[in-house]
Amino acid sequence: MGYFRDNVERMAGYTPGFQPKATEVVKLNTNENPYPPSPAVMKTLASVAPEQLRRYPDPVGQSFRQAAAQVSGVAPENIMCCNGGDDLLSIAIRACCDKQRALAYPVPTYTLYPVLSSLEDCKTLEIPFADGYSLPTELGKTGAALTIVCNPNAPTATWIDIDDLAALANELTGVLLIDEAYVDFAADSAVRLVKEHDNVVLLRSMSKGYSLAGLRFGYAIGSENLIEGFLKVKDSYNVDALAIALATAAIEDQAYFQANVAQVIADRATLTEQLRALGLEVADSCTNFVLAGVPNGSAELAYEQLAQRDIYVRYFNVDGLSDKLRISVGTAEQNGKLLAALREIL
Amino acid sequence: MGYFRDNVERMAGYTPGFQPKATEVVKLNTNENPYPPSPAVMKTLASVAPEQLRRYPDPVGQSFRQAAAQVSGVAPENIMCCNGGDDLLSIAIRACCDKQRALAYPVPTYTLYPVLSSLEDCKTLEIPFADGYSLPTELGKTGAALTIVCNPNAPTATWIDIDDLAALANELTGVLLIDEAYVDFAADSAVRLVKEHDNVVLLRSMSKGYSLAGLRFGYAIGSENLIEGFLKVKDSYNVDALAIALATAAIEDQAYFQANVAQVIADRATLTEQLRALGLEVADSCTNFVLAGVPNGSAELAYEQLAQRDIYVRYFNVDGLSDKLRISVGTAEQNGKLLAALREIL
Repeated sequence: MGYFRDNVERMAGYTPGFQPKATEVVKLNTNENPYPPSPAVMKTLASVAPEQLRRYPDPVGQSFRQAAAQVSGVAPENIMCCNGGDDLLSIAIRACCDKQRALAYPVPTYTLYPVLSSLEDCKTLEIPFADGYSLPTELGKTGAALTIVCNPNAPTATWIDIDDLAALANELTGVLLIDEAYVDFAADSAVRLVKEHDNVVLLRSMSKGYSLAGLRFGYAIGSENLIEGFLKVKDSYNVDALAIALATAAIEDQAYFQANVAQVIADRATLTEQLRALGLEVADSCTNFVLAGVPNGSAELAYEQLAQRDIYVRYFNVDGLSDKLRISVGTAEQNGKLLAALREIL
Repeated sequence: MGYFRDNVERMAGYTPGFQPKATEVVKLNTNENPYPPSPAVMKTLASVAPEQLRRYPDPVGQSFRQAAAQVSGVAPENIMCCNGGDDLLSIAIRACCDKQRALAYPVPTYTLYPVLSSLEDCKTLEIPFADGYSLPTELGKTGAALTIVCNPNAPTATWIDIDDLAALANELTGVLLIDEAYVDFAADSAVRLVKEHDNVVLLRSMSKGYSLAGLRFGYAIGSENLIEGFLKVKDSYNVDALAIALATAAIEDQAYFQANVAQVIADRATLTEQLRALGLEVADSCTNFVLAGVPNGSAELAYEQLAQRDIYVRYFNVDGLSDKLRISVGTAEQNGKLLAALREIL
């Protein structure tokens, strides 16, 4: 007998985007927000007492639940704190799926989903998106226990209308998890579906719009029934006392958040226009990154040539994406360095 | 079809010890260290830059791995950072166990093990401890894929000799996880077994000896082979940037750590003696808590009467423990309030 389960022996594990140690590189590969978190976060950090570190944290992070509930127009019982959005994905799959109870999601999408499915060794149905990355009609008919739709989708940066998701929620007999990690940069969200459908849960992240990727904080918004089930599955103390305090400070400062997001959206418009002027094929994005088709399809070479110049973007060597680069929206200065390098390379 | 797996529907979830909101209560129920963390932790906290929050953390927390490896006399590749010790328990069970591959552990012990086993829906073998909470001989013969021994054991505060654990590691064909969450308060540890047995992994916590329960930081010490497997199963960014920085500062300050632990051990000796003088039956403890048998077995009543006085200890309504209270070692002042209350109650 090997030490590990066969599915664990077989799997490769998830490879996060490269994290260069040097801070002077142009890092546009993991969709971090280029602007710092709210000053309220640093102020809260400065007021942390040793007592907060010495004692166990609140197991459910009630202060954050209250703040997030107020922002989203739901009750605290509709919120669950997570150790990053990835924690919620893991919790939902463990709560809902096994060899008989399938996980389904449209592809291409966030490459962590198949890693978590291998880990849980559950039945998994990958359904290709329909034209223009719209919802495939088969997705509502799989009988899956859990269906995940990433919206806006990564890495395509595309958007599915909330009415289409409402129709999907009606059709499904299982749970619909809408991964809204990038929703802060979109014009709408599926939050209204939570009140209308007891099988809908949203994934939210503090990593993108709130500039807190280092903090590992995400949250679920779902029906009380779903949240109660997920609370049983999460680690008893899954978020730490500092993370709860800082994430609460961040989400309470909606004015800073909105200005931060507006700046990224403005930067995104400029970057999109400039990439198109260079001949790259860039669809409109509703995220904090763009997916850029490289002329003649030499995306891997362009990726390597950028890396040689200490400019990091993301390249996915998979079907439908191998001729494209995923580029996080940086500051005007970072975007300028990227564009200057692309001018040399292409 | 229900939204959740049957095993999840059935399970109750883990109930963490009560966390009173008020800070003026005497809180001796969750084995927190009564003394603050190292001043080096607060100094590191004061130097945190917004950039550390904005960017994703190091996925493996290499700075902590290096510091912990040096303290334990192993290589960084033998260390894995975890979001609290509970994260490692979950990772190990998910990596090793399923319906065919059993989990085994002696009982009574940490009550999270059966919760995680229900969650994974794996085959589970609970073997009663032999006399004096020594290892039961059957434990080496179960054929389990994963065997967990909590040493020092919670909530009995008892100790198993490392030579007995070495013999168990030799006998087992699967993995032996030694849960050393409380080992900082004991006279020995099983760290030498990691070099001699490729199936041994230790669980360590920063919550107890390092006074960082609020931070959620634990770590594994194991063979490279085991650590590599576990790294595939952990969340890609399971520990946050602040937790990595603060836990590293704490473990690097061994002088403070040793003085802190020595103080708790001295307080424990005094508390044990005073409880015995009151007629409670208290075995010698090698942890930061004592298990105290209440005269006439009225432990539940004593628990309630203490709580009415804002003094919180832990009561387990399970076989073999229902006549006992688990009392965390507090400051001399806290222990004094507990003893005064017990004098009134008993």
